[in-house]
Amino acid sequence: MRARLRLRAPVVLPCDAACSVLRDAAVDIEPDGRIGYCGPFASAPGVAEVRNCSGILLPGLINAHAHSPMTVLRGMGGDLPLMRWLREVIWPAEAAMTAADMRAGMLLGAVDMLCNGVTTSVEMYFHGEKLAEAVLAAGSRAVLTMGIIEAFGGRWPDLIAAISSWIDADGLRFGPGERIEVGYGPHSAYTLPEAALVATAEAARQRGALLHIHVAEAADEDAAQRERHGSVPRLLESAGVLGGRVLAAHAVHMSDEDIAAFARHRVGVAHCPGSNAKLASGIARVSDMRRAGIAVGVGTDGPASNDGLDLLADARLAAFVARLSTMDSSVLPAGDVLLMATRDGAAAIGRDDIGALEPGRWADIVHIDTDDPAFSAGTDVPDAHLLANLVWAAGARRVRDVWVAGERVVDGGEPTRVDRAKVRAEAGAVTRRLLGVASARGE
Amino acid sequence: MRARLRLRAPVVLPCDAACSVLRDAAVDIEPDGRIGYCGPFASAPGVAEVRNCSGILLPGLINAHAHSPMTVLRGMGGDLPLMRWLREVIWPAEAAMTAADMRAGMLLGAVDMLCNGVTTSVEMYFHGEKLAEAVLAAGSRAVLTMGIIEAFGGRWPDLIAAISSWIDADGLRFGPGERIEVGYGPHSAYTLPEAALVATAEAARQRGALLHIHVAEAADEDAAQRERHGSVPRLLESAGVLGGRVLAAHAVHMSDEDIAAFARHRVGVAHCPGSNAKLASGIARVSDMRRAGIAVGVGTDGPASNDGLDLLADARLAAFVARLSTMDSSVLPAGDVLLMATRDGAAAIGRDDIGALEPGRWADIVHIDTDDPAFSAGTDVPDAHLLANLVWAAGARRVRDVWVAGERVVDGGEPTRVDRAKVRAEAGAVTRRLLGVASARGE
Repeated sequence: MRARLRLRAPVVLPCDAACSVLRDAAVDIEPDGRIGYCGPFASAPGVAEVRNCSGILLPGLINAHAHSPMTVLRGMGGDLPLMRWLREVIWPAEAAMTAADMRAGMLLGAVDMLCNGVTTSVEMYFHGEKLAEAVLAAGSRAVLTMGIIEAFGGRWPDLIAAISSWIDADGLRFGPGERIEVGYGPHSAYTLPEAALVATAEAARQRGALLHIHVAEAADEDAAQRERHGSVPRLLESAGVLGGRVLAAHAVHMSDEDIAAFARHRVGVAHCPGSNAKLASGIARVSDMRRAGIAVGVGTDGPASNDGLDLLADARLAAFVARLSTMDSSVLPAGDVLLMATRDGAAAIGRDDIGALEPGRWADIVHIDTDDPAFSAGTDVPDAHLLANLVWAAGARRVRDVWVAGERVVDGGEPTRVDRAKVRAEAGAVTRRLLGVASARGE
Repeated sequence: MRARLRLRAPVVLPCDAACSVLRDAAVDIEPDGRIGYCGPFASAPGVAEVRNCSGILLPGLINAHAHSPMTVLRGMGGDLPLMRWLREVIWPAEAAMTAADMRAGMLLGAVDMLCNGVTTSVEMYFHGEKLAEAVLAAGSRAVLTMGIIEAFGGRWPDLIAAISSWIDADGLRFGPGERIEVGYGPHSAYTLPEAALVATAEAARQRGALLHIHVAEAADEDAAQRERHGSVPRLLESAGVLGGRVLAAHAVHMSDEDIAAFARHRVGVAHCPGSNAKLASGIARVSDMRRAGIAVGVGTDGPASNDGLDLLADARLAAFVARLSTMDSSVLPAGDVLLMATRDGAAAIGRDDIGALEPGRWADIVHIDTDDPAFSAGTDVPDAHLLANLVWAAGARRVRDVWVAGERVVDGGEPTRVDRAKVRAEAGAVTRRLLGVASARGE
């Protein structure tokens, strides 16, 4: 049995609700991979092996909406208008992707995210067992909400049944440190009949699983539903889809009533400011949603539409676009940005076991080195100053070490579990093959 | 005399008007620090020492609007509303800054920029001789447009005269590789009388110098001028301020007539999307300005308001906000983003000797390593794919080597001229002292 490991650092950001800044503090990793203590070093209880970390400790970041296997599609036709991009480049390429290709893309994405301090991603894609393999290989954590959509030849009842069977066989969460959670990913209300949404919600609720769905991403995407129901949120409410663990990705075009409905049913939102900007989808009403009590996390979306996996940069962008849309520069100060990337992201996906450094939660921890021009004055500066330098200037570029469920998966910036060069080479080979496919079909 | 150095790389982005992608190409650095050749390696003329670079070569990036000495103010009170932030935090701190403090801040900024691939910055600040010392110490390049503003006790005629004397004594450009250019930085039309703007324009035009001024940053800043003249651009036009080399920073709130006036007089614009978002100033009409023929570069603005100095990230943000404001995802494709950060930035400041890899221009060159997940498929991919991966995903995080006027000033990510730790420590000491000042005065 492992001994208790005590990480000691000049600054610990537990990401509690107040976004406290702890000085000369410790985080205890218990032998079971959970946090035993987070607080002043001097008050830490019991015997432990102490490891000194220069710089800042904070919880692993949560990418609340991702299609990470699309790392292998990154850069493909990215400056085409949206529908041409999907029809001429992405869909043909996806149709040519094998399960092994998706594993290679997921592995590249997981490693890239870990090196950016992202320990958990909420994925919507296909071939869950292969994605789980990749996540376990990298040592990260994921909620694998498997895609339910009729675009690729599958039928929705079969797709729902397959997810239910997987959960019934392996459990809702499994793997070392419960690294994998399985969930349901009905694509959207405009690609699935209402009956599919209702059946998915029933299956998910029975199992306590997450239902993860695209909502109101583009202004014109849900014309039929808006005509009949007023909006997709109200369709979801009236059909009884809401009420369990529901995560709405994007939620850009939301009325006051839509926001109230989501708040009423405790729907979480994955805000994707990078994707929504690059694809010109619009700016989500993040301040209004937060004020209504909705838990809002941040997602990168797929790397083919918002190409990086630097979640903290996207969280910073969330503040930028919120300030532009409200014309108020006091919206989303640095501490709120950090919470959206951690604690609020966990809340948005209905999890209270990750996203903060608190006893009982999994020890998903990021160590950011302060050997960076953003921290030239050191860390012994006022709290607001420190948070500003981290969030606005340094970001994740000095992520040094990462633990998931107490296991070190990044050491000095390098992944411990896999050979980064090999991961890239495998994913790169897939990309090159798919680029050939895309060329043959219309590029 | 140095021999000719031929940099050979799998990809060279000369940043010509078409944003060409050259394969297996070479850039020749002549003994005088200028570019002698840029084209296919196989056709390179004459004898040269060859240095192989893995990855991508491109011109040094141009930060078209900066107050880099404010690195020592980075993070101070950054989440206060704008006017409280200025009055309670920034202005008291600036009043307490010595010339040596400004040198320390400029040096930290110059080194930080070089490591982000930024070889030239257009500065508006004070104590030009100290800033020049810092720029020459780091080995970067700067246009030092010295501040003309009455806020710190100086009188505008004296401030203009001091700049003119400096140019008359040392020349418009000087230093090894002409690293320093001196110019005029009248702060704005709302902080200076019209007579000051006219006198500045005369002095600048006589000397062929750059006049660099804040224009239309916030919606409410120039109420008096708008009442009298319609807008600041039209005030500048009617007063005869335009016509020489004029650079307008921000230019957010511009009418069609304002844009036409700037185009008519070949005024360059330094677009600052990060600062304009973080301070909720608004979104500049970049597409409209480019369509009108205005040269638009990208600026970070000061590190106290937009904290990083990662110019390529701000150029990417320029595309994001342009797409949000036009709701058109085809606006500013990757190649245009790269040109705004290089060639167009040079044009905006009236320079044709930097910003592109072309014979005769200074050899300001950045080498970006492709050992990054963004380039997992390598560089032997279609041109648009390569540009997308560079601009949207990789950015400047793998800047490996940087040359300015043919001299290597960054080697393997480390500055060659100065000790990075020492530079940080000196700037950090200033910050800590100023934090004390700011605390005493109202934090």
